[in-house]
Amino acid sequence: MRTVDLIEKKRNGGVLSDEEIRFLIGGYTDGSIPDYQMAAWAMAVWFRGMDDHETAVLTDAMMRSGDTVDLSCFGNLSVDKHSTGGVGDKTTLIVAPIVASLGGKMAKMSGRGLGHTGGTVDKLESFAGFRTTLTAEEFRTQVEDIGVAVIGQSGNLTPADKKLYALRDVTATIDSVPLIAASIMSKKLAAGAHSIVLDVKCGSGAFMKTEADGRVLAEKMVAIGKACGRNVAALITNMDIPLGHNVGNALEVLEAVEVLKGKPGDLREICAALAANLLSLCHGWSPEEAHRRVLEALDSGKALATMEAWIAAQGGDPDFSRLPRASVVVPVLADRDGWLIHMDAAQVGVSSSMLGAGRMKKDDPIDYSAGIVLEKKTGNLVRRGDVLAWLHTSDEALVSDAEARFLSALTWGDAAPAPQPLIYDIVR
Amino acid sequence: MRTVDLIEKKRNGGVLSDEEIRFLIGGYTDGSIPDYQMAAWAMAVWFRGMDDHETAVLTDAMMRSGDTVDLSCFGNLSVDKHSTGGVGDKTTLIVAPIVASLGGKMAKMSGRGLGHTGGTVDKLESFAGFRTTLTAEEFRTQVEDIGVAVIGQSGNLTPADKKLYALRDVTATIDSVPLIAASIMSKKLAAGAHSIVLDVKCGSGAFMKTEADGRVLAEKMVAIGKACGRNVAALITNMDIPLGHNVGNALEVLEAVEVLKGKPGDLREICAALAANLLSLCHGWSPEEAHRRVLEALDSGKALATMEAWIAAQGGDPDFSRLPRASVVVPVLADRDGWLIHMDAAQVGVSSSMLGAGRMKKDDPIDYSAGIVLEKKTGNLVRRGDVLAWLHTSDEALVSDAEARFLSALTWGDAAPAPQPLIYDIVR
Repeated sequence: MRTVDLIEKKRNGGVLSDEEIRFLIGGYTDGSIPDYQMAAWAMAVWFRGMDDHETAVLTDAMMRSGDTVDLSCFGNLSVDKHSTGGVGDKTTLIVAPIVASLGGKMAKMSGRGLGHTGGTVDKLESFAGFRTTLTAEEFRTQVEDIGVAVIGQSGNLTPADKKLYALRDVTATIDSVPLIAASIMSKKLAAGAHSIVLDVKCGSGAFMKTEADGRVLAEKMVAIGKACGRNVAALITNMDIPLGHNVGNALEVLEAVEVLKGKPGDLREICAALAANLLSLCHGWSPEEAHRRVLEALDSGKALATMEAWIAAQGGDPDFSRLPRASVVVPVLADRDGWLIHMDAAQVGVSSSMLGAGRMKKDDPIDYSAGIVLEKKTGNLVRRGDVLAWLHTSDEALVSDAEARFLSALTWGDAAPAPQPLIYDIVR
Repeated sequence: MRTVDLIEKKRNGGVLSDEEIRFLIGGYTDGSIPDYQMAAWAMAVWFRGMDDHETAVLTDAMMRSGDTVDLSCFGNLSVDKHSTGGVGDKTTLIVAPIVASLGGKMAKMSGRGLGHTGGTVDKLESFAGFRTTLTAEEFRTQVEDIGVAVIGQSGNLTPADKKLYALRDVTATIDSVPLIAASIMSKKLAAGAHSIVLDVKCGSGAFMKTEADGRVLAEKMVAIGKACGRNVAALITNMDIPLGHNVGNALEVLEAVEVLKGKPGDLREICAALAANLLSLCHGWSPEEAHRRVLEALDSGKALATMEAWIAAQGGDPDFSRLPRASVVVPVLADRDGWLIHMDAAQVGVSSSMLGAGRMKKDDPIDYSAGIVLEKKTGNLVRRGDVLAWLHTSDEALVSDAEARFLSALTWGDAAPAPQPLIYDIVR
């Protein structure tokens, strides 16, 4: 088999066979197929696409390119969730204890933040003493006993995806639905859970700019998951507005705790939907029953108790009042009247990062207490002098640049924007 | 300027600016743009194309990526011809002396053969003593005095094209009209001639499978040449049939000499057309006058005398009877009756190469006497026992494989094939 022939076949609109796709991914992983051939192939895929079967085989080949996690000891109860990326997205911190308190088994690997996006591992490390490295035995036992454990990435999962993603990033081939779908799903499948719920975010700050685009990706990923024998559902959600009010590590943990204590709002709504879909998949509950049980777990304090047990089990101090607090908290005031008609979530993330909450390079230290608390969000009417947000940091010198960046994220108008749904649809 | 943005712009169907094209070619030549980005760009060009202006700028940028030959001392009289590649294509050996005998100045660099294609330099080296390396002064003086000199490739001409062509070859991006046109024209323009005639071959064995495809390429190349200030014309010719009867180095020289001595046929016809178009471009003669003078040069022996002077000037023995002759000459007999309806020129070239006429690797030695003389060509009616061709070689052991390959090139039918024109059209 010659790589150039496979590039030509795809370029001409052909459908690659299973063997051909596995040859490409195997060769790229072991280095026998060079970057330049893979780049030409990826561009041909950008133009020609891949059908559902090709995409499933690509996903499977990338999943098998490295280590895979075996969660078969939990049977059908192992669950995982994935978000296509967001700012202020603390849903894992809420969904995991809800689901765990209702019998789901969330044995999850999660990442650190980079650039304007946060990472669940960083958020959890806001708890003094929290360990994100566990032995395989500790990990398994904790999931067995409490229903949830979250650790940092370990092992050599999906090396083919890592290599291909880095290549796509510099060859203008990121925004291809089959390549995005295979990239996400290969990682999720390698992580081993039997039931997976995907949060596909749409909007100006996301890969998928429109609901229609989001639906295409969601349907593709659900099809892949099913083809690979897993239970999968996808929520198509709006990410034109940051989720909740807090951005930054300890600030997001605090907001998650508020939701677990019963606070209403968009964040509770989306977390309840994610959790109910996971429980529906792993227990076979009807959507209505799953939703009812989720609200019960929130209202009874059962989910909050699971959160405390989880943090303690991984060595963290479960007293939420002792989470780090910023020494400098400065309001951003509105210098005009008007309607907030758009808030660029990515720029809000950059602003939070500039306050110390994020890192630019992989090993930069971060300030767990830093971040932003939004007082006004898209759709609000603002009066001159109103507090738009509070900037939290340990270093006053960082405030003015971060404030300017925050203000640049806002778009003002003279009338209320059309209300946007939080969840467009659910693909099952 | 970021390479990834230029790839994306082309991928999305945009038109690259002059500056952007020069950035890509400059960066690729100096190594600052890696192969994988250029491969993705080439694939985007395959899908999106380039307009005439983009293609002219690409050609100019590749032409300027290395050395260029200065033939300005010959004014408007410097001429060059280029064929898009063929088997048994000895036209340069005939066109050059015709044009030189009528005042054109052909200062030409030419290549060696590789695989199934021959090279003019190899053919000339059939003459004992022929030197394909001349000093710059020898080269200029010979062109001044005799009107023609042909040497091997020297200097660092169009390194960007060399690099990009090698990359396209392994990334399924060869068959893109703007990239083919820019590749050919950058080399022709760097070689310095003021008037250029292109022989664009169409057919099953050529890049361009149909007359329509050939016309698109011909028009693109003529447009580029004009945009760069040269006189250019293109003949769109049929290459479904090998040109003339002889394939192989000394055999092709002998056939060229026969044409220069007055032998009629397809080869004379196409060489006359190429020569007349060159003379028309460089002298401003009407097509009719140019054609009349070409026939006169052939019939008077003037072109043949120029051939002898040329060979002698470069140190070769101009006594054609002393060209190398094969010690083994074996007929290929027809084992059936029928019409020859197609002859795969590339496979005939491979067969000749297998007899010793060609090389597989760049520095392989070749047998100048080896090759094939066709007795039957496409359109002929054949009777069982007829001689189809004569195989010439120095090594009898090579005959049986070469014969099998030759026979595999033939397609038989029960009726005469439709006659095909030799020259479809001329683009000026």
